[in-house]
Amino acid sequence: MKKRVAVVGATGIAGQQFLVALQNHPWFEVSLLAAKTGARRWWCQEEPPPQALSLPVYQASSLNLNGIDLVFSAVESEPARELEPLYAKTTPVVSTASAFRHEKDVPLFIPGVNLDHIHLIDVQKKKRGWQGFIATQPNCTTIGLAITLKPLFDNFGLKKVIMTSMQGVSGAGRSPGVIALDIIDNIVPFISGEEEKVEKETRKILGTVGAGSITPADFVVSATCTRAAVSEGHTEAVLVAMVQPCSVEDARAAMIEFGREFVSLGLPSAPKHMIIVHDDPFRPQPRWDRDAEDGMATSAGRLRKDTALENAVKYVLVSHNTKMGAAKGAVLMAEYLLQKGYI
Amino acid sequence: MKKRVAVVGATGIAGQQFLVALQNHPWFEVSLLAAKTGARRWWCQEEPPPQALSLPVYQASSLNLNGIDLVFSAVESEPARELEPLYAKTTPVVSTASAFRHEKDVPLFIPGVNLDHIHLIDVQKKKRGWQGFIATQPNCTTIGLAITLKPLFDNFGLKKVIMTSMQGVSGAGRSPGVIALDIIDNIVPFISGEEEKVEKETRKILGTVGAGSITPADFVVSATCTRAAVSEGHTEAVLVAMVQPCSVEDARAAMIEFGREFVSLGLPSAPKHMIIVHDDPFRPQPRWDRDAEDGMATSAGRLRKDTALENAVKYVLVSHNTKMGAAKGAVLMAEYLLQKGYI
Amino acid sequence: MKKRVAVVGATGIAGQQFLVALQNHPWFEVSLLAAKTGARRWWCQEEPPPQALSLPVYQASSLNLNGIDLVFSAVESEPARELEPLYAKTTPVVSTASAFRHEKDVPLFIPGVNLDHIHLIDVQKKKRGWQGFIATQPNCTTIGLAITLKPLFDNFGLKKVIMTSMQGVSGAGRSPGVIALDIIDNIVPFISGEEEKVEKETRKILGTVGAGSITPADFVVSATCTRAAVSEGHTEAVLVAMVQPCSVEDARAAMIEFGREFVSLGLPSAPKHMIIVHDDPFRPQPRWDRDAEDGMATSAGRLRKDTALENAVKYVLVSHNTKMGAAKGAVLMAEYLLQKGYI
Amino acid sequence: MKKRVAVVGATGIAGQQFLVALQNHPWFEVSLLAAKTGARRWWCQEEPPPQALSLPVYQASSLNLNGIDLVFSAVESEPARELEPLYAKTTPVVSTASAFRHEKDVPLFIPGVNLDHIHLIDVQKKKRGWQGFIATQPNCTTIGLAITLKPLFDNFGLKKVIMTSMQGVSGAGRSPGVIALDIIDNIVPFISGEEEKVEKETRKILGTVGAGSITPADFVVSATCTRAAVSEGHTEAVLVAMVQPCSVEDARAAMIEFGREFVSLGLPSAPKHMIIVHDDPFRPQPRWDRDAEDGMATSAGRLRKDTALENAVKYVLVSHNTKMGAAKGAVLMAEYLLQKGYI
Repeated sequence: MKKRVAVVGATGIAGQQFLVALQNHPWFEVSLLAAKTGARRWWCQEEPPPQALSLPVYQASSLNLNGIDLVFSAVESEPARELEPLYAKTTPVVSTASAFRHEKDVPLFIPGVNLDHIHLIDVQKKKRGWQGFIATQPNCTTIGLAITLKPLFDNFGLKKVIMTSMQGVSGAGRSPGVIALDIIDNIVPFISGEEEKVEKETRKILGTVGAGSITPADFVVSATCTRAAVSEGHTEAVLVAMVQPCSVEDARAAMIEFGREFVSLGLPSAPKHMIIVHDDPFRPQPRWDRDAEDGMATSAGRLRKDTALENAVKYVLVSHNTKMGAAKGAVLMAEYLLQKGYI
Repeated sequence: MKKRVAVVGATGIAGQQFLVALQNHPWFEVSLLAAKTGARRWWCQEEPPPQALSLPVYQASSLNLNGIDLVFSAVESEPARELEPLYAKTTPVVSTASAFRHEKDVPLFIPGVNLDHIHLIDVQKKKRGWQGFIATQPNCTTIGLAITLKPLFDNFGLKKVIMTSMQGVSGAGRSPGVIALDIIDNIVPFISGEEEKVEKETRKILGTVGAGSITPADFVVSATCTRAAVSEGHTEAVLVAMVQPCSVEDARAAMIEFGREFVSLGLPSAPKHMIIVHDDPFRPQPRWDRDAEDGMATSAGRLRKDTALENAVKYVLVSHNTKMGAAKGAVLMAEYLLQKGYI
Repeated sequence: MKKRVAVVGATGIAGQQFLVALQNHPWFEVSLLAAKTGARRWWCQEEPPPQALSLPVYQASSLNLNGIDLVFSAVESEPARELEPLYAKTTPVVSTASAFRHEKDVPLFIPGVNLDHIHLIDVQKKKRGWQGFIATQPNCTTIGLAITLKPLFDNFGLKKVIMTSMQGVSGAGRSPGVIALDIIDNIVPFISGEEEKVEKETRKILGTVGAGSITPADFVVSATCTRAAVSEGHTEAVLVAMVQPCSVEDARAAMIEFGREFVSLGLPSAPKHMIIVHDDPFRPQPRWDRDAEDGMATSAGRLRKDTALENAVKYVLVSHNTKMGAAKGAVLMAEYLLQKGYI
Repeated sequence: MKKRVAVVGATGIAGQQFLVALQNHPWFEVSLLAAKTGARRWWCQEEPPPQALSLPVYQASSLNLNGIDLVFSAVESEPARELEPLYAKTTPVVSTASAFRHEKDVPLFIPGVNLDHIHLIDVQKKKRGWQGFIATQPNCTTIGLAITLKPLFDNFGLKKVIMTSMQGVSGAGRSPGVIALDIIDNIVPFISGEEEKVEKETRKILGTVGAGSITPADFVVSATCTRAAVSEGHTEAVLVAMVQPCSVEDARAAMIEFGREFVSLGLPSAPKHMIIVHDDPFRPQPRWDRDAEDGMATSAGRLRKDTALENAVKYVLVSHNTKMGAAKGAVLMAEYLLQKGYI
């Protein structure tokens, strides 16, 4: 029998992406929709799932979660701060919002990267006296970065990460998102709050779970986040200085090897490879590579020695910010939590 | 009386940009056109200068330079290697081609940055037995970078420069240049040979002229060069680690102060400011800032402390790759050479 | 002494375009700003005029127009319906809003096209008992179309006009305007209400002023309005069937000839040519031609015989939708009204 | 047993699209590759089919077709004129080139539209003494137009067709195709030769097969073809005046009904619907709709009454120019020819 899930923020584009990611899902069934406002236009390129569209949309602030096994929260940060604890009293919450990402007892998960942070959930439930819990997903720009850093971190240790992103406009949503007038024939060199998120989240994700909290990993992240005239897909130019020597071939092998165990779990939304490594220097490109393995694989390329820092390599990655970087990544996280008995 | 100049490569877009930059010039008069192929479409957005268009186009390989005071060379690197020494036997050559940029006795000039390298010209003439000489302009991506680095180099010393560029498509010219199919809704993470040029040229430009040659400056440049869906204007995210402590305010002041003396020379093509510093974090943007001071000023913004490296700041710059970064920058260089008596 | 003008809606992008168009104006001085909301970001690419920026911003609904000679109204249609009659009681109002465009006694002006509709103003003042009046500017898509139709209408009579537009995104403003996610790598085939505006306005503009009202011209306009990935500039593919035979050469000559008298009035914001005709089949293009004569000239090209309809020619036009098509066109209209003694 | 096919022009992007369309095809097996030049970069976004890539590439001009059942020709018009008759002496040729489209005995096929023109093939073989034949595919811009016109033509008769296209850049290929510098933030109002092709081909496709030749259909097509900043997918705004009255609902029903019989043939590359009709006025859009039914369905929308012409409706269509409009459409044509016993 499928688990019954609620999608909160169901009328926004982020919520609709959950409806798409959950269509015909073997384990989850969308049973309840909630939002602040009423029906709206369908925004996703995929056809709207008829079953989900036929459900009524309830007020998010007074939701009856009887019989609901899991809440996917796709609301903005501010309403998330109020709504998610309400839900978590009785029900697990998997959230793409940033509101609780940095609470000490709240895990910040990337499937395949740090699912060992899972026992923070037990701490959280006990400490807060909740039957449910809140599990959060990082910022879409952090996700591709942390996925590609993880094998380097595990094998060689990290000292410094210097990253410049060229982000797709879908990351900004539609309220109002990026105005076309601002990005045609242009680069916008600033995304408010983004660099801080990337710098802080990456270290928590790669941090160590201790007794009841996470110690952020001990390296520095320096990010410059820009917006480009790209619809979907974040491109990031990364320079990584490591603790131990790491040749280009070492880094390449570590990335290719990475995630075998996780993808072998057979979770329905998992990619076949966590990282696809390209040897063609013209790859990865967002238009070509964002949809790799249905947007769930991160593509890396241009691996090469860096000469500015010690034990350093450089590479470029492309990650799908609204698939692995948003709803579908959150569904993958929920699949893991279910398999481990947390839902 | 105006100096009589020849434009070689006059039918390509780079050559046509020279014709535009020289239109109604107070000191130079276009008197001779040369190219490999015959008449072609006019490619520049500016109207074609009628006087120059009325001139016949001669074969570049058998050019009679009698009565010509200066040659502007806008040919590709390969023909430049053959043609420019021919011309330089009798006549000064100012070139945007890369063929001779790294010869020990050939200066690689950016106006306002390293015009003190000018006496390499004397060395070159003597060594090669030429009446003329070859003076070269750097790659368009190097130019904005070196201009913004120069005040930091002079005031605080440089140790490491880490740069990621998002370059406009005009930098690739039209033969065939960047294909639209490759860049719409996309980022291309590689530009063949570009990173090596930036890394090598920057150090020569900021190098020290000794007895007959230049010692490249002693810092490391690590570049990642990408192409974005931008028509004109290169955007570069720069991280600079310096020898001495340099606060954000120090860097800002040094950039604003930079170039006062040079712009006060009153050269016809010079901007009023070498660097325009923006405090609005959303600036500079290529569509808004590339045309600053007719494309001759470099715009910098997002100056902030970097935490990854010691004594380091980060910033974003925008530079017009086909104005200051190409023909008009070369004309400005020629104006200086003329003022100093080299032409 | 300059006329003192108020700009209402001064904090939106349309209002800011008025501030740019009025900067250093020889006849008008911005003396009063009004808006609904307070200070906002500066949106225009041109630098903000310091004098205008230093003025306080008053509430549009309770504006004291003492000492003000003219109001430029750049508000949305709905507030315009309430505000403009308030202002017109005492003061001339030149408006880009659509609220009053189709009132029988309100002229819908395009400078150089139908300024003979000016004596509707007398009718309006008398009928409404106002000391001021409302004069309106058409939709930005109508303007280029009506300008190019006018010489054909005058010389050959019009029967049918079939037009497909590919419009720039700036026409939608910024609240929220066109979302980048909707237009990158795309065409949007619908702009709500636009086709009806073009079809109705064009006939009123070319209509005949009778005793106290305008009889719309007797031809049919059939429009398809689409949005393209263009920042500024509307491109329109036009097919015109005329009453009398009209060769391509006839149409070309009529367009070139058109507007000589108007531009010879020497109004400060007028272009030197109302229509620039291109013989190069690749022109006009919005990026190349929108800024012709500071965005005040309409560019036409691809004039050719049409075989589907009788006495028909086809052409493509480009018009700057936020210069001649918005604030600067409205300022030009005001210049004419002032010269004729209406302000 | 699968038919053995050759792909000529196999190293260009059009030829590579054939390799993609034929990968794992149930009826055809790529057995021979030919081209003028040697190996090149792989240009298609789809992964290269390993089997086809492992084949040697022979000279197109001296091809041994022993054992080959069918040639797909993806060369340019000029070489097609020489090569295709050579091949057709012995072997059926299905071509996307324009060289023979207007020969009286050469069919110009769109699958599902005019496959009854098939017995021109018998005429052609007899007349030319060939064992094989040449069957051609129309220009990519004609294809979507003719597909949507066909149901209107059959049910109501056509008098006049007025069409403005906004075409994707992939239609121009890569040699050199559309230069990015020409199309970013722009519309190019002219595509050399395109309008004539559309006007002539449409009437041949909807023409009547008589004794040994086709009488073009008796209506007028007036086209304006422009290029937009769209990667793939042609958008066309169409006005159709018919012989008999046709309401919007009539046109809609005819389009929806169209092609049922053809798609029920079960050809491997056929879409499930020839035309998808949208009621949402914001559809079809190239980025959303080009890939409908793997790029083989044509999407139509904005059906509405036209007031300029009698018995006229207007609509907008989107057609995938490099799927149904090129290789995959040609493969579908070949499937039909095979089913009918011509291959």
